[in-house]
Amino acid sequence: MNFEEKLVEAEEKNKSLLCIGLDPDPELMPPKMGVFKFNKAIIDATADLACAYKLNLAFYEALDDEGIDALKRTIKYIPADIPTIADAKRGDIGNTAKAYAKALFDILGFDAATVNPYLGFDAVEPFIDYLDKGIFVLCRTSNPSSADFQSLQFVLKRQRLPLFEIVALRAAQWNKKGNNIGLVVGATYPKELALIRQNHPNMLLLIPGIGAQGGDLASAVREGVGAKGHGAIFASSRQIIYASAGGDFAEAARRVASSLKDEINYQRSVPS
Amino acid sequence: MNFEEKLVEAEEKNKSLLCIGLDPDPELMPPKMGVFKFNKAIIDATADLACAYKLNLAFYEALDDEGIDALKRTIKYIPADIPTIADAKRGDIGNTAKAYAKALFDILGFDAATVNPYLGFDAVEPFIDYLDKGIFVLCRTSNPSSADFQSLQFVLKRQRLPLFEIVALRAAQWNKKGNNIGLVVGATYPKELALIRQNHPNMLLLIPGIGAQGGDLASAVREGVGAKGHGAIFASSRQIIYASAGGDFAEAARRVASSLKDEINYQRSVPS
Repeated sequence: MNFEEKLVEAEEKNKSLLCIGLDPDPELMPPKMGVFKFNKAIIDATADLACAYKLNLAFYEALDDEGIDALKRTIKYIPADIPTIADAKRGDIGNTAKAYAKALFDILGFDAATVNPYLGFDAVEPFIDYLDKGIFVLCRTSNPSSADFQSLQFVLKRQRLPLFEIVALRAAQWNKKGNNIGLVVGATYPKELALIRQNHPNMLLLIPGIGAQGGDLASAVREGVGAKGHGAIFASSRQIIYASAGGDFAEAARRVASSLKDEINYQRSVPS
Repeated sequence: MNFEEKLVEAEEKNKSLLCIGLDPDPELMPPKMGVFKFNKAIIDATADLACAYKLNLAFYEALDDEGIDALKRTIKYIPADIPTIADAKRGDIGNTAKAYAKALFDILGFDAATVNPYLGFDAVEPFIDYLDKGIFVLCRTSNPSSADFQSLQFVLKRQRLPLFEIVALRAAQWNKKGNNIGLVVGATYPKELALIRQNHPNMLLLIPGIGAQGGDLASAVREGVGAKGHGAIFASSRQIIYASAGGDFAEAARRVASSLKDEINYQRSVPS
């Protein structure tokens, strides 16, 4: 079973397009709680609500050995039928990208990973060569500075296109190899999201930026979900896992996750 | 002492602009040799020839716990007066970039790091906020596919400029904060290197791609070294550390490193 099949099964089983981000930050977690213990409680409370879990490696690397240990234990603890995404944003020259792909897929055992396109095809190829894994190429990211380069206008055949759309076009070409490429497009930029969806109706989108980053969920769902009804997943982390810093953090996470899941499904059901 | 001061001291002490890449690959290393033991022997054999050591994190991450352990021991083992560069190419949204900067600078103790500009300023800012550290922004990378996006022509203020030059312009603007930003420009693209050096005469350049990647050393030195005579460092890894796979690997690494160092100095002395 490849990544997309596994994802669709989890989406259908849990009736959810919600991807929960497990980004441990000791300043926001309940005090004196270990990272794995925290993640385990969040997973126990939300495993029937998520279509995927996304782990951003930065937060684990920043916690040194305890972080890496918790990362590995968390990946193993996530139920086998829910796919795991390494939000790693790696990008390096071919030989090195191969080592990163090995680290994320063979060593850590993730089902999918985010990659940075700046170095071009040979930085992405070693990832997409893992045909059963999912690759999300950064396209239009959710952060405030993402326009710095991603929205520069490029002239192609007398048309003006922003860099992020050229990245999407190239990613679509690369996708012919294994049909395992998706795009990262932030909910914080609904117009750009609509453009990407219009030009790439069948590409899987990973959409961060709802919740703490301020992206509007209704427009993200309206613009992001493709014709098949499951062409996008919506990632939220801080809004869910730090819903409470008290002893009720897991219940609070469940409440927010459940409400997000339901809101996404409600918006999917609204006729456009 | 900040990164650039430390770098210039090491350059002057060892009369070298050679940055040695420590990228362990068990398939190329002498058989049954641990990574730290390998690195230690290379460092012992070359510490008077290098102005910096560059460690690409991918190769350590691909070796799991042994790799991370060797990474940490290697950083500690490198003589304190030779700067260390984390070739990590990280790039993520502000909150997350902060965690990556913490991992590389506070946890691992590197003196400098490479970062990916695709996400824009807020992905780079948490790194440059470490004013005593060096930040190398990927500009024109050394790999074959680097033209895919980096050489696309964009319109900026009615001028057409390649993306890598726009990245360099922005990096120069960001540099006003701490004057601790340099650029990564591959030796494999001497024309692009010349353009960057012409437009940014005082920016520090990290130049990979000599050696195994086929970049021409003479033109890289001619185009890369700035007016002050030490505005560039030249990174080589495989050509040095895998000069021999036999018991003489450290002596062979020393021979190649010494010859590269001398050739760089010779090319610096040739009047242009």
